[in-house]
Amino acid sequence: MKKHAIIVAGGKGSRMDSMQPKQFLLIGGKPVLMHTLEAFHRADASIGILLVLSESYIPHWKELCEKFSFSIPHRIVTGGHERFQSVKNGLDVIEEECLIAIHDGVRPFVSMEIILASYELASKKGNAVTAVKSKDTIRYEEPGVSRSLEREHCYMVQTPQTFLSGQIKEAYAKASHSSFTDDASVLEANGGRIFINEGSYDNFKITTPEDLLLAESLLQKKEARH
Amino acid sequence: MKKHAIIVAGGKGSRMDSMQPKQFLLIGGKPVLMHTLEAFHRADASIGILLVLSESYIPHWKELCEKFSFSIPHRIVTGGHERFQSVKNGLDVIEEECLIAIHDGVRPFVSMEIILASYELASKKGNAVTAVKSKDTIRYEEPGVSRSLEREHCYMVQTPQTFLSGQIKEAYAKASHSSFTDDASVLEANGGRIFINEGSYDNFKITTPEDLLLAESLLQKKEARH
Repeated sequence: MKKHAIIVAGGKGSRMDSMQPKQFLLIGGKPVLMHTLEAFHRADASIGILLVLSESYIPHWKELCEKFSFSIPHRIVTGGHERFQSVKNGLDVIEEECLIAIHDGVRPFVSMEIILASYELASKKGNAVTAVKSKDTIRYEEPGVSRSLEREHCYMVQTPQTFLSGQIKEAYAKASHSSFTDDASVLEANGGRIFINEGSYDNFKITTPEDLLLAESLLQKKEARH
Repeated sequence: MKKHAIIVAGGKGSRMDSMQPKQFLLIGGKPVLMHTLEAFHRADASIGILLVLSESYIPHWKELCEKFSFSIPHRIVTGGHERFQSVKNGLDVIEEECLIAIHDGVRPFVSMEIILASYELASKKGNAVTAVKSKDTIRYEEPGVSRSLEREHCYMVQTPQTFLSGQIKEAYAKASHSSFTDDASVLEANGGRIFINEGSYDNFKITTPEDLLLAESLLQKKEARH
C-alpha cells in the first residue's frame, strides 16, 4: 500500500530561548526540519512527504531550501491555528487509500527502524502509535485529585503515529473538539483501539534549550562515527 | 528546623552502555555523585548529607573521594536490594525531628532554588515533591486498558522529595510492600496528601547514554559561562 507522511511543523516555538521557530533552528549546520524529512526519505524514498507549515513561514522555508540546496521531494500544505487543524489540512489533500504516518517536524532523530515498523504495524492493525516507557514516575494532578501512576504502565507518546487513511480521516472528520495533543487521542475519541510501536529515547521532541543542546551532541557523536 | 538530605545511589546501572554504575561515571571530569552532593552543600552548607551506597561500592567511593580530594562532609549508609530499603536505611539513622530531602544520586543538575524551595514547602505543608509538567502526551497501558491522559494534568516526578521526618518515617514503617518507585507514593499509600514543588527539565536523571551526553554538554555550557 502507498505510504504518505505528514510532517507537522506549524509551531512558533514559544518554549525556546530563540525568536526562530524551533523547526528552523540549525543542528549540525542544517535546519531541524530538513533532518526530519531526510529521515523519512532515507527510510523509504517512495514515501509521499507532505510538509505542513504555517502560512507565514512558507516563504522562509522556500528560501532555506534554496540556501541549503535541499532536494528531497515534498509537497507543502498550509497549516491551521492548532495542531489539529494542521493535521486535518494534511489529511485533506491525500485522496487515495494509503498508510499515513503523522510526525512532529521537531523529532529529527526518528530512526529508519521506527518509521518502517510503524507502517508495518499500521498495515496489519490499522494504526501504530510510537511510544516509549516513561523513565520517571508520573503523577496525575487535577483539583482534588493527585495520584501516582505505576511507571511500568506509563508510556510517553512520540511520533510517528501511523494509520490506515480511512480510519484517521474518519476520526478527524467526526472529532467534536480540536484540543487533542496527538492523533492517537483523536482516533480513540472515535472508538478506535490503539497499538503501540516501540519508540526510543533519542526520538525526542526539540522543545527546550536542553533538547537543542542534546540534539547538537547527538549529531556530533553520529558524525564522529562516520 | 534542621535539614538532612538522603542521597540515594544504590543503582547498578543496567540501562547504561557501561560497566560502571552511572553514579560513578565522570561528567566534566568528576563522578556524577560528587556533583550531586556539591549541589546540596552549595544550597545550604548546614544540610546533613547521608549518602546511601550499595555495600559493594563503598570501598570504590572512598577511593574516588581520595583521588578527587572530595571534601564535602557526608555520612555513608549501606543500601538495600531495592530503592525502598535503601531509603529506609537512610531514614533509620536520622533520629532528631527535622526536614529530610530524599534525592536521586544521578540527578546532579538540581538547582539551589529547587532544593531550598523544597525544604521551604515541606516545612509549611509537611512534604514537597519536585515534579515538572510532561512535555509528551502520556498513555496509560495495561491489559485491556489503553488511554490517553491529558498532558496538562501529567507531571513527571523528580527529586528532591522532602518531608517532615515524622511523616515519612511513619509511612515507611507502615508500608505494605517495597516496590514503590518514589517516596511520594509511599507517603500517599499511608494516606498523605502530596504537594508539588516546581522542578525543571534540566534536573533530569542520568539513565541512558543520551542523558550522559546531555549532562556533558550542559556542564560544558555552564563552565563556558564562568
